[in-house]
Amino acid sequence: MPGICETTEYEACVYRHEFIERKQITMDKMKMDEMERSKMKLDQIKKYVLGTPIETDAAIYEVQAAALPCPYVEMDAQAMEISCLLGKHDIVYGLGQQVRGINKRGWKYTSFCSDDPNHTENKESLYAAHNFLVVAGQKPFGIFLDTPEKVSFDIGYSRPDRLSIRLCSWNANCYLIEGDSAYEIVRSFRKLIGPSYLPPKWAFGFGQSRWGYRNQQDIEEVLAGYEENNFPLDMIYLDIDYMDRYMDFTVDGEKFPDFPQFVEKMAHKGIHLVPIIDAGIKVQEGYGVYEEGVEKGYFCKDEEGRDFVGAVWPGRVHFPDMLQEEVRRWFGEKYKILLDQGIEGFWNDMNEPAIFYSEKHLGEVFCKLEDYKGKNLDIDSFFEMRDLVQGLSNYEEDYQSFYHRYQGESIRHDRVHNMYGYCMTRAASEAFGRLAPGKRILLFSRASYLGMHRYGGIWMGDNHSWWSHLLLSLKMLANLNMCGFLYTGPDLGGFGSNTTEDLLLRWYALGIFMPLMRNHSALGTRRQETYQFTDKESLRGILRLRYMLLPYLYSEYMKAALRDDLYAKPLAFVFPDDPHAERIEDQLLIGESVMIAPVYEQNARGRNVYLPEEMKLYRMRSPEDMEEETLAKGFHYVQAEVNEVLLFVRAGKLVPVARAANRVAEVDMERLGLLGYVACEDAVYELYDDDGSSRDCSLEGHIRRITPIEAAETAAE
Amino acid sequence: MPGICETTEYEACVYRHEFIERKQITMDKMKMDEMERSKMKLDQIKKYVLGTPIETDAAIYEVQAAALPCPYVEMDAQAMEISCLLGKHDIVYGLGQQVRGINKRGWKYTSFCSDDPNHTENKESLYAAHNFLVVAGQKPFGIFLDTPEKVSFDIGYSRPDRLSIRLCSWNANCYLIEGDSAYEIVRSFRKLIGPSYLPPKWAFGFGQSRWGYRNQQDIEEVLAGYEENNFPLDMIYLDIDYMDRYMDFTVDGEKFPDFPQFVEKMAHKGIHLVPIIDAGIKVQEGYGVYEEGVEKGYFCKDEEGRDFVGAVWPGRVHFPDMLQEEVRRWFGEKYKILLDQGIEGFWNDMNEPAIFYSEKHLGEVFCKLEDYKGKNLDIDSFFEMRDLVQGLSNYEEDYQSFYHRYQGESIRHDRVHNMYGYCMTRAASEAFGRLAPGKRILLFSRASYLGMHRYGGIWMGDNHSWWSHLLLSLKMLANLNMCGFLYTGPDLGGFGSNTTEDLLLRWYALGIFMPLMRNHSALGTRRQETYQFTDKESLRGILRLRYMLLPYLYSEYMKAALRDDLYAKPLAFVFPDDPHAERIEDQLLIGESVMIAPVYEQNARGRNVYLPEEMKLYRMRSPEDMEEETLAKGFHYVQAEVNEVLLFVRAGKLVPVARAANRVAEVDMERLGLLGYVACEDAVYELYDDDGSSRDCSLEGHIRRITPIEAAETAAE
Repeated sequence: MPGICETTEYEACVYRHEFIERKQITMDKMKMDEMERSKMKLDQIKKYVLGTPIETDAAIYEVQAAALPCPYVEMDAQAMEISCLLGKHDIVYGLGQQVRGINKRGWKYTSFCSDDPNHTENKESLYAAHNFLVVAGQKPFGIFLDTPEKVSFDIGYSRPDRLSIRLCSWNANCYLIEGDSAYEIVRSFRKLIGPSYLPPKWAFGFGQSRWGYRNQQDIEEVLAGYEENNFPLDMIYLDIDYMDRYMDFTVDGEKFPDFPQFVEKMAHKGIHLVPIIDAGIKVQEGYGVYEEGVEKGYFCKDEEGRDFVGAVWPGRVHFPDMLQEEVRRWFGEKYKILLDQGIEGFWNDMNEPAIFYSEKHLGEVFCKLEDYKGKNLDIDSFFEMRDLVQGLSNYEEDYQSFYHRYQGESIRHDRVHNMYGYCMTRAASEAFGRLAPGKRILLFSRASYLGMHRYGGIWMGDNHSWWSHLLLSLKMLANLNMCGFLYTGPDLGGFGSNTTEDLLLRWYALGIFMPLMRNHSALGTRRQETYQFTDKESLRGILRLRYMLLPYLYSEYMKAALRDDLYAKPLAFVFPDDPHAERIEDQLLIGESVMIAPVYEQNARGRNVYLPEEMKLYRMRSPEDMEEETLAKGFHYVQAEVNEVLLFVRAGKLVPVARAANRVAEVDMERLGLLGYVACEDAVYELYDDDGSSRDCSLEGHIRRITPIEAAETAAE
Repeated sequence: MPGICETTEYEACVYRHEFIERKQITMDKMKMDEMERSKMKLDQIKKYVLGTPIETDAAIYEVQAAALPCPYVEMDAQAMEISCLLGKHDIVYGLGQQVRGINKRGWKYTSFCSDDPNHTENKESLYAAHNFLVVAGQKPFGIFLDTPEKVSFDIGYSRPDRLSIRLCSWNANCYLIEGDSAYEIVRSFRKLIGPSYLPPKWAFGFGQSRWGYRNQQDIEEVLAGYEENNFPLDMIYLDIDYMDRYMDFTVDGEKFPDFPQFVEKMAHKGIHLVPIIDAGIKVQEGYGVYEEGVEKGYFCKDEEGRDFVGAVWPGRVHFPDMLQEEVRRWFGEKYKILLDQGIEGFWNDMNEPAIFYSEKHLGEVFCKLEDYKGKNLDIDSFFEMRDLVQGLSNYEEDYQSFYHRYQGESIRHDRVHNMYGYCMTRAASEAFGRLAPGKRILLFSRASYLGMHRYGGIWMGDNHSWWSHLLLSLKMLANLNMCGFLYTGPDLGGFGSNTTEDLLLRWYALGIFMPLMRNHSALGTRRQETYQFTDKESLRGILRLRYMLLPYLYSEYMKAALRDDLYAKPLAFVFPDDPHAERIEDQLLIGESVMIAPVYEQNARGRNVYLPEEMKLYRMRSPEDMEEETLAKGFHYVQAEVNEVLLFVRAGKLVPVARAANRVAEVDMERLGLLGYVACEDAVYELYDDDGSSRDCSLEGHIRRITPIEAAETAAE
């Protein structure tokens, strides 16, 4: 039974929804654990230089090149293959944003940033290129292939006992990372690639999005829907609809007659508008960004040296050559147009870059269609024709037909493809440093490469309203954290396809633990704003739990980011000697105190959960309605109705909670309660908190220790 | 510990792989359980006649029409909707071949036979129309909408608490079925629609298939691959490749210079060749089936009364008007061409019917493409164009543009669409009755309607090499059994996409319990014959378990079919009062003695299993390598390596097993062992066995009772 507890420095209430005001706080300067730090020494990292690598700036430290052979893998320059044998039960972690499990074994993957909205198991590429793997076997090691070209990974697919990594050309920096455990290796790697992006605190609120909000009235209706139902909300996202003919950095004046005023009005209600920015710039006379880009020669060139023309949402576009620092600087400054109108957050999209078609290839296809028309179409020709049209988008040869200037040379796009979205987001992030120097701006991207995690988060891409994608988002969260992408989350409820109320409830129950928590859906699908569904009480309860947990979630995020640590971890990272823990693919540790185990099966009323140690289970329906029980180490079937969130608190750990509010800014971080082992004398929680918006985010000065000293007897009363 | 046991009538060995010859068998005439039978009384079924229903012959009994109102559902002729409220935790069973769970609640489904190879969660139609539901709530009832038109089911999708069934026209026979439990209702329904198809015993062997075996040599290579590895095999399937230009009932003479001789040669080796038959007849001068069909007017007509032209594998085809008895008779006789060459089994395909395109619509599309070419294509037009080409196949308007003659009238195809594949399979089945009167012929179909289960089985359609489809095949098995389709199974390993060795092993571990057990894959995917993979010992072990289990599987199948019962059941059907059992979606009861719980997660080394009562677990790697333990009622985490099959035997039940062989015909049904509760004095097993090929399959005369009388002490030795 939880009871009210007191500490010398801190007074907190843990009895459900009662909160007592804090009387005094003693700031306690965080002391870095030197033992821990020493584990992450960079001398555990070796770099092997293959050929003449293209610099990506993914690593922030210069690592001395080592001499071959490498003790862990075979490197075959002829075959352009890096390989090793896998032990029968070795686990392979990594690859960040990819399909399948936390353990990537048993499939082949390709790093080639791709706009593919059907994330089925057989896919090899999503939007990212996260070329980092950990082989967790008897002698664990990590490997990071730093090259912006396409890379293929065969992780026990062709042969169950073999890992093979194939390059397109023998040019890459290959980092080998040693360590005693997968977790230690990941932390060294994270040190190598530098600190994760820090969003403002309001970005930990809940956001509503949809492709298809037609105007200001639609946005206001959304807010009204939330307010009328007393649902919390911090953000409304603006998908491509807000722009004038899909031109970046414009706002359609008919849809939003006075955009700055509208932004202010929404801000006054505590709502942040977060517009989308696409990679391609519309070819349009009179459009400043286009005209400037052409004039300055800032766009990617085709084989003949003309500005390359692709087609995306705006129709014909040019792609800014984001690899050039000067272009990045120019493109980044454009965000000022929206910053000046009161915008404080952005999402960068279509930056793989997605190409619906190129003019050149479309012409070729039309010519071939002409041929088919004349012929008496046989079945082979029919399928050929269908594939031809289907294959217009993201056509491989299009990516081989335009050029960047990079480090003084002209370089064909496919050789640097995986850096494009990264460079776009870097452009924005670096500009924010200049344009809003003291301030954290929300920024996340669809495409990414390792290293981009320093500049922004990513969302998990255009998923579907599938139960399997609920689970996939949990698995992806673990591997993204290993790659430094801490600020991330899926489109809750699912982007494509039609959602259902129970899927949304269950996905929210996971989503409240995702740093990026938003509901987003595609044009043409069922409306899926929270207020569209019937069981508003349950929906409200779960959303409010997010705000109740905010002190913990924000604190754990910031500590993880500032310590190059993981916000979300597979169980095995913390319980490495537990043979069950290492196989758990549907539970995660969130921060230092919490384990989550969401239900991801339709019509289920509970699920099996593995506890690697004794834990306290909170079965929560809302901040005001939860019950607690202690469960022993082992497997348990745990009931969880569709309106219930399962939160497990680790033995001896604490979870600070706040009184729920409808805006992050309204969450009172000074009056906290505690969940967890509050009757345990050793329990300590290090709470990180700050002003939530300034860039002064060092651990020093922002950590306070919460130590309940209440005796077990008091709690038992 | 299992030990050797003896019975008065029967001697069986249960100690793993030792077998003792049977000394004597006392035939024991099966006595029908009158209590059981009385539960299935047809007077629990009420028929409501809506409008003027089109006769489908789905029901085999004439049920007196009842007067409205119906006590269970509201019928709104205006809205063409049948609806009712659902209790919060009501479970809805049924719909046979569909996506999602055993419990269909929380989605919308459409009965419109469709050739769609992407069975993702958001799909509404697969290949079948199985309009039967059971609402298992406080007052359970079943509902069967007998109409060959499109029917839509909204099962708690729009509103979680409401079931709505929408018709295209207010013409249907609506059967309402009462009973005390879902199981009882299902059994009454099964009685209404008549007995399930009985395949020959060899059809319970394992079969290899692939789209793309080019000729006789390819087939021989497959057999050699199996023989060299000592893998069991009974069937090799012939996909469309064997035909001359995809013309039904032809064999390509270049690929198979002497087909009858080849069939005989294979038969001599114990291998049955199973050719595919497609629905469409190639438009080809000189092709007898085509010319006869045209001459006799046997093809479906277009609006102008000409033979309708669709395009499928052979290019331009006509569709035989399978709804006409005369046409069915004619088409059915054509199978004789292959029967006469030694063929004893067939699979009917593309009989939704699939239409890649119609000439008419293709012309329209080419015209529109012309327009696009002229225009400066904007993005909306681009997507329009893409959708246009993508939408050529199975285009809704094509199904509204041809006609059948049925019961003296001309009727537009869409009004009878869901009967087409059913009628094709009926044509074959009825012909077999005439052409091979005493003999069981293997027959299964892709498309189906309720009632077709009397004529043949179905396979689960063109699935993918997805782990999610392994689980889907288990769920589908349960709902298909409710609809009478007992002879069924998925393409093991997956048809589309590339498989992996571990997926194949895990799917085999489920597949050995599927009546139809075959490995099938698509052209262009990774080769997936069993011998293509490395761990041949494990693969062999699992395949041989199928043959070891044959006495049980065959016996349970035949008893279920002859008793209008289920071969595979959800746990809740047998343990209706167990609140956990009713939520289990990843385990099934197979026959009266066995529960299965396959692993369907990549890289797992076990899984959670719920036991609704004490059971014996056999962890089996091969017939020669297994161990046993007794597990109590409740949840258990059970280890299961990738080479292990989990078989649970119910308390007090027995499983007769044979010495494994490489052909069904070689399985010695006279020398059996027993798994299960052999030390339990009450344990009885009723074994069905027959000659495996003749149509004399009554229960009487083919059941023998196996009763181990060995004392518990003996077993314990």
